[in-house]
Amino acid sequence: MTPTITAFARSPDRGRGLARDLRVRWALGEVGQPYEVRLVSMSEMKQPAHLALHPFGQIPTYEEGDLALFESGAIVLHIAERHAGLLPEEMNARARSIAWMFAALNTVEPPLVERGMAMLLERDKTWYEQRQPFLEDRARRRLGELSNRLGEAEWLEGAFNAGDLLMVAVLFRSKGSGILEEYPNLSAYVARGEARPAFKRAFNAQLAVFTGEPPVANNSERPLPRAP
Amino acid sequence: MTPTITAFARSPDRGRGLARDLRVRWALGEVGQPYEVRLVSMSEMKQPAHLALHPFGQIPTYEEGDLALFESGAIVLHIAERHAGLLPEEMNARARSIAWMFAALNTVEPPLVERGMAMLLERDKTWYEQRQPFLEDRARRRLGELSNRLGEAEWLEGAFNAGDLLMVAVLFRSKGSGILEEYPNLSAYVARGEARPAFKRAFNAQLAVFTGEPPVANNSERPLPRAP
Repeated sequence: MTPTITAFARSPDRGRGLARDLRVRWALGEVGQPYEVRLVSMSEMKQPAHLALHPFGQIPTYEEGDLALFESGAIVLHIAERHAGLLPEEMNARARSIAWMFAALNTVEPPLVERGMAMLLERDKTWYEQRQPFLEDRARRRLGELSNRLGEAEWLEGAFNAGDLLMVAVLFRSKGSGILEEYPNLSAYVARGEARPAFKRAFNAQLAVFTGEPPVANNSERPLPRAP
Repeated sequence: MTPTITAFARSPDRGRGLARDLRVRWALGEVGQPYEVRLVSMSEMKQPAHLALHPFGQIPTYEEGDLALFESGAIVLHIAERHAGLLPEEMNARARSIAWMFAALNTVEPPLVERGMAMLLERDKTWYEQRQPFLEDRARRRLGELSNRLGEAEWLEGAFNAGDLLMVAVLFRSKGSGILEEYPNLSAYVARGEARPAFKRAFNAQLAVFTGEPPVANNSERPLPRAP
């Protein structure tokens, strides 16, 4: 059964990889699972029909038969559990990959989002210049620890897996904001993720919602629905 | 094999449930798995031996034979996957419980932590009074959405499961700060979690590290190691 995910009909970044449907599209692409996309507007996201799918009124959601899921991390894990290719088969390695999934979302993403949100929403506030160094320090601490752990390895835990997918997706959102580039091994790590064919397909499919161009190589055999 | 977790030898809250080993102790208690505790000091957490276990120099960690895990969410999921009692058997219900685990850690916890950290660390800053209303609003938005979803239900998704465990553990950290109490159904939900015998044992075991009193009913048959 072809799953259906939701994505922004309009988003502030105009489909340049910041919205969290990217990581779900990427995971589906890695395992070769075609999918449908239903676009939702900002106002639709807060309506009862969407809130029934996503209690916090966000995207992405994932529907597959009777199953409706929310939270990109949970959706990626669900995909990884049901298809080969995103989690190691050996049980300890599998558990460690899942630990990196949680680390990406609960330890690395929050300080990066906090810094990014302040840059976006508080730049005109009187406190911005005084406060930003604290946020930079918090973000750098996590990135530094991650950089130390990754070292010269290609991926975090053996071969590419769902932990890398979420970590790269999280770091990718800070690309170009200056801070990621202070850690050359993390920049190279993100570049390796971006070079994967499934990442490119996911990125292009998300971008195509906004450019109106058909995605270069979508997983789905059917054309993507367009924003009205 | 008895797993070993790490916890703070000293923590700012003196063992009153804020440190994240609580959720792991609780999960172990729910499934009846005895465990050992190794206490680590703030400086030990940043040393190579601990960083090898936890790349971000935090607690808790989880060691069981050859397996070493970090991230409380991943540890709770690992426990829930290997023991009966914390995840529904039906596959869709199981996936939805895991979605709530991610929601607790990635959607609900960040705005609560951000608000709490500002109250703790930025109270003397010039911007505190102007900025705090924004943080309150962000936290209230998530709590309001969660409150709407929970409604009059006892737990988020059928019977108590690992999703509730993490959500209650996250909300519990905001208890007494005023904001949780604005949502009576969430307060009652947290109280239901706290009333579970395994929560009480976990809370008492964490507290006992600081009071020096033996825990009332620890899972472990052996006495807890004490802080030096």
